Amino acid sequence: ILRLRNFINSRPFQYAILILIFANAALLGLETMPHIKENHLALFLTIDRGFLVVFLIELALRIYAWRKRFFRDGWNVFDFIIILISALATSNLFAALRAFRVLRVLHVVTMIPRMRTVVRSLIDSIPGILSVGVIVVLIVYVFAVIASNLYGAAHPVLFGDVFVSMYTLFQVMTLEGWAEIANTVARTHPNSWIFFITFVLIGTFTMLNLFVAIVVRVVEE
Amino acid sequence: ILRLRNFINSRPFQYAILILIFANAALLGLETMPHIKENHLALFLTIDRGFLVVFLIELALRIYAWRKRFFRDGWNVFDFIIILISALATSNLFAALRAFRVLRVLHVVTMIPRMRTVVRSLIDSIPGILSVGVIVVLIVYVFAVIASNLYGAAHPVLFGDVFVSMYTLFQVMTLEGWAEIANTVARTHPNSWIFFITFVLIGTFTMLNLFVAIVVRVVEE
Amino acid sequence: ILRLRNFINSRPFQYAILILIFANAALLGLETMPHIKENHLALFLTIDRGFLVVFLIELALRIYAWRKRFFRDGWNVFDFIIILISALATSNLFAALRAFRVLRVLHVVTMIPRMRTVVRSLIDSIPGILSVGVIVVLIVYVFAVIASNLYGAAHPVLFGDVFVSMYTLFQVMTLEGWAEIANTVARTHPNSWIFFITFVLIGTFTMLNLFVAIVVRVVEE
Amino acid sequence: ILRLRNFINSRPFQYAILILIFANAALLGLETMPHIKENHLALFLTIDRGFLVVFLIELALRIYAWRKRFFRDGWNVFDFIIILISALATSNLFAALRAFRVLRVLHVVTMIPRMRTVVRSLIDSIPGILSVGVIVVLIVYVFAVIASNLYGAAHPVLFGDVFVSMYTLFQVMTLEGWAEIANTVARTHPNSWIFFITFVLIGTFTMLNLFVAIVVRVVEE
Ligand code: NA
Ligand code: NA
Repeated sequence: ILRLRNFINSRPFQYAILILIFANAALLGLETMPHIKENHLALFLTIDRGFLVVFLIELALRIYAWRKRFFRDGWNVFDFIIILISALATSNLFAALRAFRVLRVLHVVTMIPRMRTVVRSLIDSIPGILSVGVIVVLIVYVFAVIASNLYGAAHPVLFGDVFVSMYTLFQVMTLEGWAEIANTVARTHPNSWIFFITFVLIGTFTMLNLFVAIVVRVVEE
Repeated sequence: ILRLRNFINSRPFQYAILILIFANAALLGLETMPHIKENHLALFLTIDRGFLVVFLIELALRIYAWRKRFFRDGWNVFDFIIILISALATSNLFAALRAFRVLRVLHVVTMIPRMRTVVRSLIDSIPGILSVGVIVVLIVYVFAVIASNLYGAAHPVLFGDVFVSMYTLFQVMTLEGWAEIANTVARTHPNSWIFFITFVLIGTFTMLNLFVAIVVRVVEE
Repeated sequence: ILRLRNFINSRPFQYAILILIFANAALLGLETMPHIKENHLALFLTIDRGFLVVFLIELALRIYAWRKRFFRDGWNVFDFIIILISALATSNLFAALRAFRVLRVLHVVTMIPRMRTVVRSLIDSIPGILSVGVIVVLIVYVFAVIASNLYGAAHPVLFGDVFVSMYTLFQVMTLEGWAEIANTVARTHPNSWIFFITFVLIGTFTMLNLFVAIVVRVVEE
Repeated sequence: ILRLRNFINSRPFQYAILILIFANAALLGLETMPHIKENHLALFLTIDRGFLVVFLIELALRIYAWRKRFFRDGWNVFDFIIILISALATSNLFAALRAFRVLRVLHVVTMIPRMRTVVRSLIDSIPGILSVGVIVVLIVYVFAVIASNLYGAAHPVLFGDVFVSMYTLFQVMTLEGWAEIANTVARTHPNSWIFFITFVLIGTFTMLNLFVAIVVRVVEE
């Protein structure tokens, strides 16, 4: 078993896997080209299945080599999940799922130490923003219920029910097309500018603080 | 009274209130669904009135338990105001006010310590940005008066009077659709690009400094 | 003269001026209302001339009290310029200049110590960003000349000459409608996406660094 | 040779070159004006060739004066490349290349010490963001393959193949027109809002961290 572990951790094995991941990524990219999709789909699906088999064998080897300790490392669990999902996506059961075979390519993150570091720091910044994120969701929900009650009857496409309203307010929060939405509502509700300016101010102010939370957290470390 | 205070601060009581808040939030969300609004509105309004009664009793208990000291805590005042507003909104007097019953859901902020902390830090960042905020309002006002005088006659929808102009310039400040507005004005006033570029530069520069003010304030602490 | 200085720096005098500034600001705002403009313009212009006379007297008093030392303070020079400009704008010579009478309102900045502090810190952050700003202008100029040469003939409205191109690229830099511009050009020049993605990446990257320059400068102090 | 070096580094020579760069920049800007392009193009091209000759002579002098040491300085290599490119662009071979003669103007960066410092700090911030940049590309690629598979057949203009999808997702990442794209896809795929909200959240979150990476790197120094 020690030999197997050393083999898995050896440079040549790691590089071989990396090259396979990049080749698989390129293959899945090529497969999206219309002329390939129409003429060579069967061939591409077969090669892709071959890639899957290799990654499944790699996964099995790792599990065999480390046994229970394998699942103690978060990165291994990550690999296990994405390869399992892509195995499911590769099966013939649902054609719509095929799109998610590409998740297998995320395996590259665990293979390159530098990428692990970056992704880990990305993940580490989540708890710091989660508490502000919950406030953002609360604000959006409260404003969405108000908007549905006030403007839902007149503008069902924008504020038909609380979920439609949350989607519309999410869009307003990204400042994308908010003025157009506000103008549409203003035609039936002349005072709606109060609602929109309040939401844009509170929304961007909270997002700003969410961002500051990330900066401060990182500077502290 | 000490017993009552302990009861109010006890875990089971707190969790019961929290569950009621979430249930009330879900109910108000469901109520926005068109098919529910049409067929079961009376039922939903009755249940919602029940929720309000519970929160009013909770509020009364707290006031009875702490008397004058109750109003010394800002969070209690916050609860008092939002529950009073939502009580007013629940009354049958104005149907349009019903939309604001959902403000009651903000009670959740005072019930979860972690949310209190986040909201407090949000509120604490306000004084730091207020002075820059006043400058932003001053700049928008000055530009709005100029725009009304220069472009108001030709473009009443965009710059008809100083309030319409301020709304339009607020939109320009969010960079949403500013080029379209500038192009519309440029058709009658070919030199208006000077106005818009100046305003976009000054506006975004001041907003940037407003943001920096938040970052610095937080880093200082 | 010492008495005059004390009088000018006294609270009552300062408050009187402040109230006059706010009254003047409100008057100029009201004047933009269409129904006032049509029916009471002459009256409003007369009152406004009255305000100007007061501010001119205040300015004269200050200059008389401090003589040459008056012009050594940047804020006094600022007051001198904006009141002179607004005096020019109030004269009957050019109706179009009337719009700039409102600049007089900026006098409020020098009257409130806290606003002075904020504006001073805004101005202090300019040199730190000027060097990056020059780079931004250089990049925009180079890209504008390239765009004029490549796309000017086919899209004169967007890239007709170097100035039109600079305006269009300024708009692209604010990310407002950049995709629409890129799509318009792509119809005649299929490879133009390289130009636009390069410019968006370089532009936003440089703007980011410009912003970082402000943050760092402020944190340093 | 020492005399030549002193001459090249002397103030008058440096200023002469600077003036020539600005004159050349102005000339290339003027050349984009339609009426000049039509009537005086030959004259302008001739003058421009004159400018090129001067910069080529300057480059040759520098190489002759420092020999091999010339190419050890990154700024010299930068000058060498942009002047060579612009020489190629000035040649009569391809009219389309003419647009890139303006790259010669970037020579100004190496001539002004302060601009060197700013550009160097811009370049120094690249490695810090490169690792996050690679993650961004990986995320965009994975989402692009998924989008091509799911929406490519129904919306070939937006998600026809993996490259078209990457361009569309780049646009979504800048938040420009993302809601319009999402609405277009939602007409055929009602659940596509999950895809777009996920991508917008992950995309902006990663971009934020990319930005934080720059801030932290600069603050560290
Ligand atoms: Na935007
Ligand atoms: Na936008």
